[in-house]
Amino acid sequence: MAWRCIELPVLVDIRELITCRAGLATGDVGRITDAALAWEGERVVWAGPAGDLPASLASEQTISANGRLVLPGLVDAHTHICFGGWRADEFEKRCRGVSYQQIAAGGGGILRTVEQTRAADPETLFEFARGHLDQMVQLGVTTVECKSGYGLSVADELKILRVYSRLQKEHDVNIVSTFLGAHTVPPEFSGDRSGYVDLVCDVMLPAVAEEDLATYCDVFVEDGAFSADEARRILRKAKELGLGAKLHVDQLGDGGGASLAAEMEAVSADHLEYTNDEGIRRMTEAGVVPVALPLASLYLRQPPMNARQWIAAGCEVAVATDFNPGSAPSYHLPLAMMLACTMNGLTPSESVLGATRVAARAVGLSDDLGSLEPGKRADFCVLDSRSLDHWLYHFRSNQMVSTYIGGKMVWSLS
Amino acid sequence: MAWRCIELPVLVDIRELITCRAGLATGDVGRITDAALAWEGERVVWAGPAGDLPASLASEQTISANGRLVLPGLVDAHTHICFGGWRADEFEKRCRGVSYQQIAAGGGGILRTVEQTRAADPETLFEFARGHLDQMVQLGVTTVECKSGYGLSVADELKILRVYSRLQKEHDVNIVSTFLGAHTVPPEFSGDRSGYVDLVCDVMLPAVAEEDLATYCDVFVEDGAFSADEARRILRKAKELGLGAKLHVDQLGDGGGASLAAEMEAVSADHLEYTNDEGIRRMTEAGVVPVALPLASLYLRQPPMNARQWIAAGCEVAVATDFNPGSAPSYHLPLAMMLACTMNGLTPSESVLGATRVAARAVGLSDDLGSLEPGKRADFCVLDSRSLDHWLYHFRSNQMVSTYIGGKMVWSLS
Repeated sequence: MAWRCIELPVLVDIRELITCRAGLATGDVGRITDAALAWEGERVVWAGPAGDLPASLASEQTISANGRLVLPGLVDAHTHICFGGWRADEFEKRCRGVSYQQIAAGGGGILRTVEQTRAADPETLFEFARGHLDQMVQLGVTTVECKSGYGLSVADELKILRVYSRLQKEHDVNIVSTFLGAHTVPPEFSGDRSGYVDLVCDVMLPAVAEEDLATYCDVFVEDGAFSADEARRILRKAKELGLGAKLHVDQLGDGGGASLAAEMEAVSADHLEYTNDEGIRRMTEAGVVPVALPLASLYLRQPPMNARQWIAAGCEVAVATDFNPGSAPSYHLPLAMMLACTMNGLTPSESVLGATRVAARAVGLSDDLGSLEPGKRADFCVLDSRSLDHWLYHFRSNQMVSTYIGGKMVWSLS
Repeated sequence: MAWRCIELPVLVDIRELITCRAGLATGDVGRITDAALAWEGERVVWAGPAGDLPASLASEQTISANGRLVLPGLVDAHTHICFGGWRADEFEKRCRGVSYQQIAAGGGGILRTVEQTRAADPETLFEFARGHLDQMVQLGVTTVECKSGYGLSVADELKILRVYSRLQKEHDVNIVSTFLGAHTVPPEFSGDRSGYVDLVCDVMLPAVAEEDLATYCDVFVEDGAFSADEARRILRKAKELGLGAKLHVDQLGDGGGASLAAEMEAVSADHLEYTNDEGIRRMTEAGVVPVALPLASLYLRQPPMNARQWIAAGCEVAVATDFNPGSAPSYHLPLAMMLACTMNGLTPSESVLGATRVAARAVGLSDDLGSLEPGKRADFCVLDSRSLDHWLYHFRSNQMVSTYIGGKMVWSLS
């Protein structure tokens, strides 16, 4: 990828600036036609109609958006980008109707990736994850939440989180690290679940906190993964150590995970395909962001989360890819956003909010990014489409033209 | 789009040549590793392991595939690419849960496109459709079946088919034209269905045949569109005039359309979301190609056609986009192929066959194209992926590197 510094801080000739700014009505993306956007260093200093651009900013240092759309950089609020090896053979089996659970029982699934991730050296993992980020940038993605969870030993979980820490330093994409030691119980603890939970609480979490390797702690709450009680114990310990809570819940059945997320004051709860009305109500009251992961529903052939129920309850819904080598082997966030419309029932505007301002809330960064307004990071992408609705309706391969992170153009089509 | 003639007729350094040749076991794509492909003019003259390349062909006129995959050019066996205007606003409504039928009842749907298509001049329609084809080529598509059906008057149906006729002459993509006058009953005949069927049979079809504007005649058999009896009458008349039969059936309910397709000896029957076992059995016996259109199922939030039922019955299943401004506003055939895996249950290999050799059968061109073997058209695409399975599993924006039609490179990434 070519990196090029931009020193001209005013973007003009924006046909539609999608601000996603705070304080708008539900589902309103804050569209400004014929707009300009100015930034200084990493931060936006002005966003509005071109005609209102202050004279002091209408300098000669302008960049033309060539009549394209500009929207906040996309935030992928749920990924597992650091892993060793693909599982295309399992995809082939799942197409034929073999279930994810049957594949896991046959030695496939998460544990196969754990084996390959443990065997991989840090440099290989780093290069592999960096390659994904480089591609994601071309799709307009500027912030990525990255989970561990394919190590499941102290050394291997730290190995993954250190990859993310290095990416934070060496890649322009904003990285939010999440410790997911409680992804599944590793084979060496198959007869001793509580021993593994002890390890997570007593050794892994303190080690993660000691090196400041993660902002959040996540737990996969599901039959076959971890119980609500185990999740409580882990998240309480995480909180003591200064880590926020995230949860994978209700993906394959209604396990009361949404209520647990409310109880634990999680920043987000993700999946939610089977959440009941009580769970929706409790999460809404607690302000936990629901994250739709339609690629996982598609690849696993599960009923999708019903986003309209959440919106009716008063929630805003985030959209993310869940990128991982098993249940969602695609980092194509615009595809996930289109699927959030066709499968989850979000409107295109709601879907764009779900991958910008709402996704920023889901990773605890809404004060910093997710919208284009003074003070926020100058993270944005330039889109070649007739309109925002048209982009997600007339789905094509990639309509992004360029991507800026912290005011710097990090990718351009030409 | 840049058009460049290639005079060097041997492609070497192909990591995997996906031949999709005839005579293979069900689901076998005829993969040759470390392969070469030679053609003369528009036709393949040799395809096989590089080590077996005859000395006479191992000339200096080689092109390197740079270790990439080569597969037959993709055949989109079901599109409606000539239309006036988009309907992104209806998409927004459908995301919120308004049904396709409700939208049609409110003046939207097909009839809205009919109105816009009637109002459009031929040049505008031509340029619009040509733009779609240019984009489809970049996705590896080399043959496109194109339906009329947004005119619904003698003059407007002929206007659309003449656009296709002109594209056949002026565009490198192979065009197969289908007359779909029986797409829906136009408003001026809303009180006189049989009058419209008379017009289709007695005026439109003879005019289409007179100008040799279509290879096939298609009928949309569905509640609210045309009955089986009306379809019979139209397709019999078409047959008399030398047009083959295609059918849209069982998309929104089981209307016995599959059995009708068998009875009418249709080359294909498309949609089939609700087809019963008897219909599957009869189509299989009659050799009618079932065409899966997963994008339409996705965009309309309908249950997808179950491809495994058809394969179990002994059929091969074609995959197409159904590209149109309402129910499937995407011409992204590789996305449709991925969805054919995740939604319809085809394996990646079956999906690739479904968009190459089987799709060629669905448009009656299997003697001519759809596979890479001596005598077939040198229509192929060069793909940057670890493997065929990996391509549809790890879905990215566009992995095509170049596209050749009739031996000529018509698009290249660089």
